[in-house]
Amino acid sequence: MTQRILILGGGFAGLFAARELRRKLPKAEIELINAENYFVFQPLLPEVAAGAITAPHAVTPLRFLLKGVKVRKARIHDVDVSRKVVTIFQGVQRRPTEVGYDQLVVALGQETDLSRMPGLADHALTMKTLEDARRLRAHVIERLEHADITRLPEVKKEALTFCVIGAGFSGVETVGEMKELIDRSLKYYPNVSRGEVSVKVVEFAPRVLGELPESLGRYAAKQLEKRGIEILLGVGVKSATGTRLILSDGTEIPTRTIVATIGNAPSKVVQAMPLAHAHGRIKVDRMLRCEGQTDVWSLGDCAMIPMKEGASARTDFAPPTAQFAVREARQLAENIAASLSGKALKPFNYKSQGALASLGARRGVAEVWGMKLSGFPAWLLWRAYYVAFLPGFGTKVKVLLNWVMDAVSPRSTVQMRSEAPPAARYVHYRAGDRIFEAGTRADGFYTVIEGAVELTYPDTHTGEPVTKRVTPGQHFGERMVLGQERRSGTVHALEDTKVLVLDRDAFLKIADAFPVMRSYFQGYMKQTYDIDWPTPTPTQTQTQAPTTGREG
Amino acid sequence: MTQRILILGGGFAGLFAARELRRKLPKAEIELINAENYFVFQPLLPEVAAGAITAPHAVTPLRFLLKGVKVRKARIHDVDVSRKVVTIFQGVQRRPTEVGYDQLVVALGQETDLSRMPGLADHALTMKTLEDARRLRAHVIERLEHADITRLPEVKKEALTFCVIGAGFSGVETVGEMKELIDRSLKYYPNVSRGEVSVKVVEFAPRVLGELPESLGRYAAKQLEKRGIEILLGVGVKSATGTRLILSDGTEIPTRTIVATIGNAPSKVVQAMPLAHAHGRIKVDRMLRCEGQTDVWSLGDCAMIPMKEGASARTDFAPPTAQFAVREARQLAENIAASLSGKALKPFNYKSQGALASLGARRGVAEVWGMKLSGFPAWLLWRAYYVAFLPGFGTKVKVLLNWVMDAVSPRSTVQMRSEAPPAARYVHYRAGDRIFEAGTRADGFYTVIEGAVELTYPDTHTGEPVTKRVTPGQHFGERMVLGQERRSGTVHALEDTKVLVLDRDAFLKIADAFPVMRSYFQGYMKQTYDIDWPTPTPTQTQTQAPTTGREG
Repeated sequence: MTQRILILGGGFAGLFAARELRRKLPKAEIELINAENYFVFQPLLPEVAAGAITAPHAVTPLRFLLKGVKVRKARIHDVDVSRKVVTIFQGVQRRPTEVGYDQLVVALGQETDLSRMPGLADHALTMKTLEDARRLRAHVIERLEHADITRLPEVKKEALTFCVIGAGFSGVETVGEMKELIDRSLKYYPNVSRGEVSVKVVEFAPRVLGELPESLGRYAAKQLEKRGIEILLGVGVKSATGTRLILSDGTEIPTRTIVATIGNAPSKVVQAMPLAHAHGRIKVDRMLRCEGQTDVWSLGDCAMIPMKEGASARTDFAPPTAQFAVREARQLAENIAASLSGKALKPFNYKSQGALASLGARRGVAEVWGMKLSGFPAWLLWRAYYVAFLPGFGTKVKVLLNWVMDAVSPRSTVQMRSEAPPAARYVHYRAGDRIFEAGTRADGFYTVIEGAVELTYPDTHTGEPVTKRVTPGQHFGERMVLGQERRSGTVHALEDTKVLVLDRDAFLKIADAFPVMRSYFQGYMKQTYDIDWPTPTPTQTQTQAPTTGREG
Repeated sequence: MTQRILILGGGFAGLFAARELRRKLPKAEIELINAENYFVFQPLLPEVAAGAITAPHAVTPLRFLLKGVKVRKARIHDVDVSRKVVTIFQGVQRRPTEVGYDQLVVALGQETDLSRMPGLADHALTMKTLEDARRLRAHVIERLEHADITRLPEVKKEALTFCVIGAGFSGVETVGEMKELIDRSLKYYPNVSRGEVSVKVVEFAPRVLGELPESLGRYAAKQLEKRGIEILLGVGVKSATGTRLILSDGTEIPTRTIVATIGNAPSKVVQAMPLAHAHGRIKVDRMLRCEGQTDVWSLGDCAMIPMKEGASARTDFAPPTAQFAVREARQLAENIAASLSGKALKPFNYKSQGALASLGARRGVAEVWGMKLSGFPAWLLWRAYYVAFLPGFGTKVKVLLNWVMDAVSPRSTVQMRSEAPPAARYVHYRAGDRIFEAGTRADGFYTVIEGAVELTYPDTHTGEPVTKRVTPGQHFGERMVLGQERRSGTVHALEDTKVLVLDRDAFLKIADAFPVMRSYFQGYMKQTYDIDWPTPTPTQTQTQAPTTGREG
């Protein structure tokens, strides 16, 4: 009977595993499940963020790359190794779907977890997905647009300060490309001078690109500094707000742009799987078979792959790089094939051929077969290597075309996506921060989660200023239910504070639809401000719901 | 003293007005304000939606196109003609900014208003902005992905039925391009056969492309039908749900894709301006000066421009086309210049040179200087005309490159944006629709706005099925606060029903942060299900807010 091989994840590990398995097992039924319908080439994300490559050209549909493999776009819910079934949710579907397998390959990579640093998860951008890259680009351009027209010096300073956390490959390439995007765009922003822009990279280690030899790290640092990028070494991140990055040494950096390239963590789905884990990653033997399992395999960033017997030190395990993932895929396919035909399995073995990093502005560093390269040659090698590595001929061509266009034409400063924040989000403030002031646009309803704020508003009758302390569980900004467009009060944080902000549209819809809220606010308004509840508030997006029987 | 000319809007009218004014008045200070920082070439949107052109290449940054003109990305709040000041909100700023002017040019175009047809505004996609085009493309591909893997025939049918409302230029070009995208993508979806796909266009008028001569309309219709597009004429739209389009003749079309190219309406900001209006548009004289104003002007789709004295019939006014907008811009600049130097103003005069429409798949129709063209020549002319029309050399090149690439390579089926719906949204159901069933993913909290639903769930103790009628103001799906991942009850609509859906994450954040909600649900759970309130519910995005003093 034909074997059903199911692969979870469509990154380097999953994609190449599927391809190798397709070659080695022509009769097997092979299916790959991924959350996106395309393969994203991680190393190119910084260039997408910088607009050197347009997003759609940096990725390839998995269906193009996997002829003869069934591709399913779905979210993985859980794995049942005893029933040999994976439960997923696909499409808009809320109904769970079960997918069976004979052999399971887990290649789900890693996620980002910034929760250890207060505010960072809520205020930092990340660089993991294509959306991340597009968001970062739009965010940087929005800052330039704003800096060009604002009359407020402090707002301009925040807008023009860009911080990247982490100076590994991803951090260095991101900061380098981001600086290039800004430098090449400035000529379109007459009111922004080069000297006003500040781009920083923060690294906990004492040097950049720890993965590369010291001399190359030094070269990279010199190159970045020469281009005006400030490098802060040996310092960590303590916390973040919407306008501040606070470092472990207490430094406060006024900024509206924080890009976190740190915090790689195993995905929750992987951790929840009934498999043996180590540090949240999946324990496999040297044959890439999951510990204690006969038909479950794992590779790539989500797997802990020992490179020798009795591996214990960090360096005894395979590093989470594309280079390794591809070789792991080959060994994995061989071993699955061998196990099916009852042959002996072989341990995974591979020696890194080297490493490369692009610094942007046509500079790079590389160490290949022990040789060190830097500057333009290294940058060229970087591009050549990755284009060669890029799966799919069409994509190769498109990326090359993009590079040519980019070399001969200015960077487009089109700001593609509008920056609509989530309707319910956490926002963090430092003690003393102004949260909003009278006269500004009433854009949200605030509930205090941690800390305390002080609210000052004019008394409804006397107009005299009234001051009020708002603590966890209490709220402010609720006058929107009165249809108020502008703030009548001013609010600032008394302590470091975390609030839940519900945007205007969502808040008005709920207050209007949900009688509990209605009656609560009715009482609250009367008691607090001696104001009577208004006639139902129309929201931007028309709410023509009849009021008849609304209290039902 | 130098004149300050302020232009509101960066479409064809605003962009070309700014350029003409820059030429005619070298000394004046000219500023243009637009919500986006780029100029979007509307006629190309259907091709963006179809993936023939990648979004960033269909647009050009306004700053590229407007050398010597100050460009400001901001939202217009209101206009004060007595103080000669426009109030705006720029960037993330909540503080209002005032911008003064000597001469004001209003070129804000039109918006879409679908509110007359219940459910349409909440369930239809539109084709006005670049985001709309990108969303439509991602939406179509998502449907193909889903159709390829679902095991449920009715789900597949809904996924593979695509409806466009309106068969004017925008509707015809959208349906034609959409069909081409689907046809060219099908080979990557092995489980979807051509015969299962149904693409329809619904038009209230008795024929397509009413703007063109009857014979060309007939030709266009024949071409579309030949390619398998179904054309429904002489029928309007009654209402829509997430899975149905209901026509005026009562027909119910099971579909998850409704694209509305109808419902052009004047923008709310324009209607709120202290200017004379007619049918919501701004009344101007033949010199393009606003009625009763000396220094406020208007052109483009937002203006009612009489083409002769005593204009009254619809045809006596300038049509809302790019072709006219560009000529109006020229006349407007001349007249502003004349008025500043005390010269006589000239009335706007222009005769349409003709009209073109692309039908996709290399077919088009055109009427130029009285000559009728159709088929491939007309399609070529269409492309040539629009590239010539396209402002910005770089953009011309990029669009041409895109067309070349598209001709020689397959359409990419990359689905770029994840389809996250708004956190608080209205959803409409028809009587009898199933809303959700036991076992499905608990993804939202529902409050009934109109209509009534029936909820069936197992009694907490006996497990016996309990049935409950839920009416406006009442809610269901609240067990999520118990941390429940799956539905325990089944819900269907008893009448045509409108509900407010609050997504899981937003609902849990609010229920967790807002004591009123907490205590309400505490009581409700106890009373309704005899269930005790759980320990605070963790949400996907960690909510580690301490409970101490939460009831503050």
